[in-house]
Amino acid sequence: MANSKYEYVRNFERDEHLLPNTWIVVRIDGRGFHKLSNHYGFGKPNDIRALNLMNLAATRVVTSIPEIVLAYGISDEYSFVFHKSMNLFERRNAKLVSTVVSTFTAAYVALWPTAFQSGSAWEDGTAASLDVAMLPTFDGRVVCYPSWENLRDYLSWRQVDCHINNLYNTTFWALVQNGGMSHTEAEEFLKGTVSGDKNEILWSRFGINYNNEPEMCRKGSVIYRDYALETTATIGEPKGDEGDEVWRGIEQPGSKTQAEKMRKIRQKARVVTRHVDIIRDEFWVQRPWIRSGKPGKPPEQDLES
Amino acid sequence: MANSKYEYVRNFERDEHLLPNTWIVVRIDGRGFHKLSNHYGFGKPNDIRALNLMNLAATRVVTSIPEIVLAYGISDEYSFVFHKSMNLFERRNAKLVSTVVSTFTAAYVALWPTAFQSGSAWEDGTAASLDVAMLPTFDGRVVCYPSWENLRDYLSWRQVDCHINNLYNTTFWALVQNGGMSHTEAEEFLKGTVSGDKNEILWSRFGINYNNEPEMCRKGSVIYRDYALETTATIGEPKGDEGDEVWRGIEQPGSKTQAEKMRKIRQKARVVTRHVDIIRDEFWVQRPWIRSGKPGKPPEQDLES
Amino acid sequence: MANSKYEYVRNFERDEHLLPNTWIVVRIDGRGFHKLSNHYGFGKPNDIRALNLMNLAATRVVTSIPEIVLAYGISDEYSFVFHKSMNLFERRNAKLVSTVVSTFTAAYVALWPTAFQSGSAWEDGTAASLDVAMLPTFDGRVVCYPSWENLRDYLSWRQVDCHINNLYNTTFWALVQNGGMSHTEAEEFLKGTVSGDKNEILWSRFGINYNNEPEMCRKGSVIYRDYALETTATIGEPKGDEGDEVWRGIEQPGSKTQAEKMRKIRQKARVVTRHVDIIRDEFWVQRPWIRSGKPGKPPEQDLES
Amino acid sequence: MANSKYEYVRNFERDEHLLPNTWIVVRIDGRGFHKLSNHYGFGKPNDIRALNLMNLAATRVVTSIPEIVLAYGISDEYSFVFHKSMNLFERRNAKLVSTVVSTFTAAYVALWPTAFQSGSAWEDGTAASLDVAMLPTFDGRVVCYPSWENLRDYLSWRQVDCHINNLYNTTFWALVQNGGMSHTEAEEFLKGTVSGDKNEILWSRFGINYNNEPEMCRKGSVIYRDYALETTATIGEPKGDEGDEVWRGIEQPGSKTQAEKMRKIRQKARVVTRHVDIIRDEFWVQRPWIRSGKPGKPPEQDLES
Repeated sequence: MANSKYEYVRNFERDEHLLPNTWIVVRIDGRGFHKLSNHYGFGKPNDIRALNLMNLAATRVVTSIPEIVLAYGISDEYSFVFHKSMNLFERRNAKLVSTVVSTFTAAYVALWPTAFQSGSAWEDGTAASLDVAMLPTFDGRVVCYPSWENLRDYLSWRQVDCHINNLYNTTFWALVQNGGMSHTEAEEFLKGTVSGDKNEILWSRFGINYNNEPEMCRKGSVIYRDYALETTATIGEPKGDEGDEVWRGIEQPGSKTQAEKMRKIRQKARVVTRHVDIIRDEFWVQRPWIRSGKPGKPPEQDLES
Repeated sequence: MANSKYEYVRNFERDEHLLPNTWIVVRIDGRGFHKLSNHYGFGKPNDIRALNLMNLAATRVVTSIPEIVLAYGISDEYSFVFHKSMNLFERRNAKLVSTVVSTFTAAYVALWPTAFQSGSAWEDGTAASLDVAMLPTFDGRVVCYPSWENLRDYLSWRQVDCHINNLYNTTFWALVQNGGMSHTEAEEFLKGTVSGDKNEILWSRFGINYNNEPEMCRKGSVIYRDYALETTATIGEPKGDEGDEVWRGIEQPGSKTQAEKMRKIRQKARVVTRHVDIIRDEFWVQRPWIRSGKPGKPPEQDLES
Repeated sequence: MANSKYEYVRNFERDEHLLPNTWIVVRIDGRGFHKLSNHYGFGKPNDIRALNLMNLAATRVVTSIPEIVLAYGISDEYSFVFHKSMNLFERRNAKLVSTVVSTFTAAYVALWPTAFQSGSAWEDGTAASLDVAMLPTFDGRVVCYPSWENLRDYLSWRQVDCHINNLYNTTFWALVQNGGMSHTEAEEFLKGTVSGDKNEILWSRFGINYNNEPEMCRKGSVIYRDYALETTATIGEPKGDEGDEVWRGIEQPGSKTQAEKMRKIRQKARVVTRHVDIIRDEFWVQRPWIRSGKPGKPPEQDLES
Repeated sequence: MANSKYEYVRNFERDEHLLPNTWIVVRIDGRGFHKLSNHYGFGKPNDIRALNLMNLAATRVVTSIPEIVLAYGISDEYSFVFHKSMNLFERRNAKLVSTVVSTFTAAYVALWPTAFQSGSAWEDGTAASLDVAMLPTFDGRVVCYPSWENLRDYLSWRQVDCHINNLYNTTFWALVQNGGMSHTEAEEFLKGTVSGDKNEILWSRFGINYNNEPEMCRKGSVIYRDYALETTATIGEPKGDEGDEVWRGIEQPGSKTQAEKMRKIRQKARVVTRHVDIIRDEFWVQRPWIRSGKPGKPPEQDLES
């Protein structure tokens, strides 16, 4: 029985192939997480267990997709960066965004019970089991950045946002939880304040030194594969990056084998999570493989253990 | 602290808004389900528990997104049909596909333990708990169909595919499981056979009447909101559909309220799952609200219960 | 000498194929025609020679591209409608828009000297020869309309715009040319007026009956292939249109030959220009071939001549 | 009279905004120029008058669109390069391609009579006047290149193509015109030959030294704005280019004024046409303003004259 009579409908399918030689960012966002965090009694301003769960789910995504060179997360959002030389799924937009979103969601839901089993300082344990009518879900989008500078600026934008939001939320919830204000009163009180004001309120009213707040909350979380810096000579930003050469080689036989080999090295690498500054150059200078896309040797501490 | 220095990166975001007044289909597909079904010991040719889990997850999607008028699933794929008049997420491609994929994945993972708790005739119970390194994930894509005929042909295409694949798989696994053939031998044996041949093999060799196989396997599963056919006068295909009028009214004040009201009626409606022919007209003639997009009254059996 | 080293750059090319089974409209607009019409001394509010030139150029486009079923023009813009069943250039966006724009521009420039050779009531003949630093150019865009109703509404939108603009311009220029007002005064004077007011001003102040203005100015110009209405039985809107069947047949051998045959009949047909109402049904009922896309026999008057 | 009833059709318009910070190339191609060149009796293998006309039309495009930093043409095609920092028409795809194609076509048609008035060595003068049924038209497409290396490779690809095609055509037509072969015989004769073979055939059979053929035919034509190299210090490729800074500044007030100032300097610059190697670095090192996008001072020879 041939299927040809109806098969013409495939002609209506359209694939968007993202521009080659650009950095691809897939950013996912929690859907209705304000309501969801109330439903499950998340701690305020931050629920460390929920942030850890985000990081575990993101680690699952990075581990299962070696083409991702870095992920950066704050609150209920995560950005996954694909190297500009990569050609996974022929760079099809819908395939990339749906695979990342589905892998993240699957891990988030599967790991939920473990993440919320042990309570934290703020919690009453209500989050322990998932309600099918209130499942955590995420939407996603894809953005291409043509230059390394654009990508760095994108990540800086997210980390600045992390800082702005977390300082605001920390002060807001201190005023509500410790200062006895209503939500509206706290909101009114903070209108027009700048960073310095909020730091001062936290310190003078509540004895809170904002810089002692958990780094995960203040800096967000960055996930990447860890390699050893091979020689001091390689310290410093690489002059260029691999994009142009890889795309130039796209027609050449043999290039697939090389790509496959690099993929396997990446799959074996240790995926780590850090809460550090990614705006200044230091982070990137010490990890040149993120920009170059070339996997290295495992770091010494891995060899020792 | 202003975020303006880096915020320019938002200018690189691009949204694709799908063409108005077209039927939108989001089709999701299991990623690597061949490997996954082996890992968890799914029954062959069909694992009824796994198919039921697909249907439960899809029902969750339809329930939580009232703009979906119908879903149709076979094997590890599901198609969700949005009415052509809908404007959810301003019809943004990435938002639609990621929301459907994430909602489906979340439900599939969350409901997995329940689905696999009770064994079936074929199972040894290995599927009971999920392995984090082998999580079920789905990718998705969006297709627009301009006419009702195109949409009907799309759904017919999927149902014909269901039939072709299921007849093949049923015969293949009978030859392997009951006929003692290796996978390769069974494959060779079936080369060049047509439907009639396979029916004959099943009957003469194994005493299997293909038409007695479960309807869920032979016809797939269709999910929709159930309403009463209000009067005999409304039986028959509606002359047209609501698309044109809705899009004409897009600028008119008040149209939002009306849409909101219809959305609420839909949210209250009962979502049902059936395993029936959707190629012939009968199914559609008896459920005119699917094409019209106009919710009706609940069916009588609902009122009685 | 192989060109392979650089040829990888072709991988950066992206083609947008417009959704099948939708009506495609390519609309072109004169670039900077306000300045251009002043430079060449076009008559105000309308320069009949310039409008005729638009129509001649559009006729050239329709004649050379048989897939176009209708063109409609007002002022310095023209819309070209491709039948929804057509597959010219595989419906590639850039190819369609650039071909229409280039063909229109070439004809407009080539026919300019003829169009402006004989002066009209308003002209002093300055337009006779083209200045290379002030060449007429056009930009273009593509829009897809999924239903016949959407397409009709699009064309109605343009004809309503024609009416609104022409009534305004006729009154404005009467106030300036015959009423001695400055541009600013006329603009101020017309602020807040409705159609009835403008008709009244024209009549009471200048004895102009707007309905006697040239139909080309009041109704715009519609261009199409003319065929005979074969029998009275075919009068009336066709029940459906050919789109679905054609797209269904897209995989079938032989369909190309049929398409080629129809293309040839169209190429031989007479292309006519009319200045009539295209908002009401009458125009379309009498010319069913525009919607059906099926070419007919030549009209009787053609056979006689 | 309001136009609101039909105006909803504007919601079907879709604009593609090309990715910021990428080099945009609009490439136009003559439509059916094989037939057209026969119709008008173009000289073979090259008609110098026709190539000059291409260059004049392209110069018109570059002159009227200051955002174009370079154009490169061979045979009946021309590539126009927009600087990656530019935001003309908000980088809308259809607007860019249609404007370039229309401006080119208008100039090509308007300048045709002048270009073909004086005959050349090969011509019989048949091209003198344009036939409305055989107007020259062009289609176009847009490609984005993220890096300077990709753009250079694109232009190298076109210049290598120019060389390959011109060497072939020169040999082919020598065999036909001077060697008495038919088209088929010449084609057969050249099958499998490499560059060296063709050079040898030209020299040994016809005494033609290919390197003495006109540079316009062998190298194509490159068009750009000419400025003085301000100091020896600026010789050498600039370290980076302006793209990132410009896009970073996209939100900042004042940036528009600066852009407007640069646009005016560009409009005054002399647009030149050269037939030189653009594959090696030399051309680019001596004209750093093409990559930087920063206009300079006029060259000395311009000041003297």
